[in-house]
Amino acid sequence: MKELSYIDLKYKPTKKDLIAKYRLEPDGVSFEEACEQLAAESSIGTWTDICTMSPKIAKKLKPHVFSINKRKNLAEIAYPEALFEAGNMPQILSSIAGNIFGMKIVKNLRFVDVSFSEKLGKSFQGPAFGVPGIRKLLKVKKRPLVGTIIKPKVGLNEKEHAKVAYDAWVGGLDIVKDDENLTDMSFNRFEKRVVETLKLRDKAEKETGEKKIYMPNVTAETDEMLRRAKFVKKCGGEYVMVDILTLGFSALQTLRKANLGLVLHAHRAMHAALTRSEHHGISMLVIAKITRLIGADQLHIGTAYVGKMSGSAKEVIDIESAINEKSFGIKPVFAVASGGLHPGHVPKLTKRMGTDIIMQFGGGVHGHPDGTRAGARAVRQAAEAVTKEVSLKQYAKTHEELACAIEKWGC
Amino acid sequence: MKELSYIDLKYKPTKKDLIAKYRLEPDGVSFEEACEQLAAESSIGTWTDICTMSPKIAKKLKPHVFSINKRKNLAEIAYPEALFEAGNMPQILSSIAGNIFGMKIVKNLRFVDVSFSEKLGKSFQGPAFGVPGIRKLLKVKKRPLVGTIIKPKVGLNEKEHAKVAYDAWVGGLDIVKDDENLTDMSFNRFEKRVVETLKLRDKAEKETGEKKIYMPNVTAETDEMLRRAKFVKKCGGEYVMVDILTLGFSALQTLRKANLGLVLHAHRAMHAALTRSEHHGISMLVIAKITRLIGADQLHIGTAYVGKMSGSAKEVIDIESAINEKSFGIKPVFAVASGGLHPGHVPKLTKRMGTDIIMQFGGGVHGHPDGTRAGARAVRQAAEAVTKEVSLKQYAKTHEELACAIEKWGC
Repeated sequence: MKELSYIDLKYKPTKKDLIAKYRLEPDGVSFEEACEQLAAESSIGTWTDICTMSPKIAKKLKPHVFSINKRKNLAEIAYPEALFEAGNMPQILSSIAGNIFGMKIVKNLRFVDVSFSEKLGKSFQGPAFGVPGIRKLLKVKKRPLVGTIIKPKVGLNEKEHAKVAYDAWVGGLDIVKDDENLTDMSFNRFEKRVVETLKLRDKAEKETGEKKIYMPNVTAETDEMLRRAKFVKKCGGEYVMVDILTLGFSALQTLRKANLGLVLHAHRAMHAALTRSEHHGISMLVIAKITRLIGADQLHIGTAYVGKMSGSAKEVIDIESAINEKSFGIKPVFAVASGGLHPGHVPKLTKRMGTDIIMQFGGGVHGHPDGTRAGARAVRQAAEAVTKEVSLKQYAKTHEELACAIEKWGC
Repeated sequence: MKELSYIDLKYKPTKKDLIAKYRLEPDGVSFEEACEQLAAESSIGTWTDICTMSPKIAKKLKPHVFSINKRKNLAEIAYPEALFEAGNMPQILSSIAGNIFGMKIVKNLRFVDVSFSEKLGKSFQGPAFGVPGIRKLLKVKKRPLVGTIIKPKVGLNEKEHAKVAYDAWVGGLDIVKDDENLTDMSFNRFEKRVVETLKLRDKAEKETGEKKIYMPNVTAETDEMLRRAKFVKKCGGEYVMVDILTLGFSALQTLRKANLGLVLHAHRAMHAALTRSEHHGISMLVIAKITRLIGADQLHIGTAYVGKMSGSAKEVIDIESAINEKSFGIKPVFAVASGGLHPGHVPKLTKRMGTDIIMQFGGGVHGHPDGTRAGARAVRQAAEAVTKEVSLKQYAKTHEELACAIEKWGC
């Protein structure tokens, strides 16, 4: 059978199509030819015409390039959902985010956005808790949640770790999170850390009358990850965190499928290796949509250009609205802002990202001149000021921890 | 404690260090300052000095930037192995290939190379078969192995798929591989495909007197992947393939750990989203070393700049030698060349990559004007010509399938 054509600008995508949007820079071929090869390589085609193709297959499974914007180098492709295995995210990605990044006929290829057909969307579980479930669990109705990452990232032993967590909780933070490179270390064993930290969580809850959260990092080989998550559950923990990209989507699905009744917090280390260039790779928007479908309850999406990490305010806000939008009855994901934050960032952050966010402060808590507890107080004070619509400078006049933080880091 | 310094050009890496090499382009800071922050963020530090750090922790866990080449933008860092959890690849990557890609103080960051300490290296299983095990299984001592990917990528039903595989085997190919987007489809169910295809494998083995290999694609959520791999084993299969990047390293470890006695073939769809830019992301060399440690037996590494995919000859040859080098008693990985190959590429490929390679032809088999069986013959003839040190043009004079392939695609 002679080579197929995939471009059909008159095609109207149906409810049974998965839609993917790409930015592509052709190399040595026309924009249209690059679109043809992109559509082929991500579906039923290859680089040459083949004897095993048939009109029947093409009719049923051929994707359609239905929109082209040459000025912006954009193309949108509608893929029939039959090209994908329901509930198998690795297979979907191997198709629409697979070999295509390596094709010689593009200098660069960016996977910009995706929308799933209803059948595919519903074949994943989505978040078990999401924003409403988490607010109910914490009994915090409106204000942003505030938390910390234990620092140094690694190096403390189990009891030291638990003590720092305790200081953060009694200082006023809701959440304490392990750092991404802290799992089961020779100097800080996973199980002992969980036991010690949850013990002091109970104490902090009793003393403050507030719900306190610990998010232990269970990122590991799949069976070991599940074993650790079950251990957390058994010890009375309510959350686990994983690093979704270094872990991988297969194991993330497995963790969600285990239905352990734990809130799943998604860290995203390594994402910027994929997402950072505007010309190549995969957008964080796509990764966020995938992660929501699979079923993380909380996801790091950036800090809207305050702090130490890249990511424009617009990009972060677009991601936040995407993981909160109504689709297939899937719960909204709690957006997490983290990376180089200090109390002085709180007004700008909440102005840009709203109050349905979790703000995580690492150095911005433990770097407080008077220590972790004072740092936690300063963060909570900043959140209070914003809720009361008082400027930080004004609020700092009567709140010394906040004043001290502002003196060190500004606002 | 005041901020630490990580640069120490007099430091000599020890056997207990993991060494990582990065190319970095500072943004708004000096090269040295960027190196400091890179070392900090990937280990024990953060963006500000913190009260919870101690000299004891720093002494035990601090990495050393021991080599800087500002002209080439290169830095090498030695990380104490205690920073890592043995046998936990996601944790290792969250440290040395994690948040660092998103730091504002670098415009671009490339993870160029890695070498593991002996303890870390030995904490992974490595390939169960590797090159010697696979050659023994196939009873092919020296020549390159030749295979095909069933095309179209998806669309054939189970029996059609098996028939195309049969044609390829009796035409002379050793290996038949599912394509990366073919798993368990509505029109081609996994189990039925495996049964039908292995049935015709047995027939092809009987008719040709040669060992024939089928590599079914088990890429899926972890439990489902294992279930499918066990099904393959039960049906008498000897191989499975997975797509390592869309699957993820956690699940890859799980598959290897299951010790099913199956040869593991690693496809690498999506790799180029990470590897393609020379300035940013992660090199294929790093991914290949990781994949070998975990324990894939065969890995796609590129085609040395013939075919449809990017990747320079030098890069591919460097990767090939890395996955074959002696280290920690780990078996060498069979390098797979695949992507837009046809028989005319065989001399250049074997000249560049040697004969310990697996060459996979998709369109280059099924696109043969006389069909799959003739295409398979043409490939085998090309491999024979190279082994006999005869030019393809010369060999084509007495081998019509090869002549026909060369007429279509050149040589």
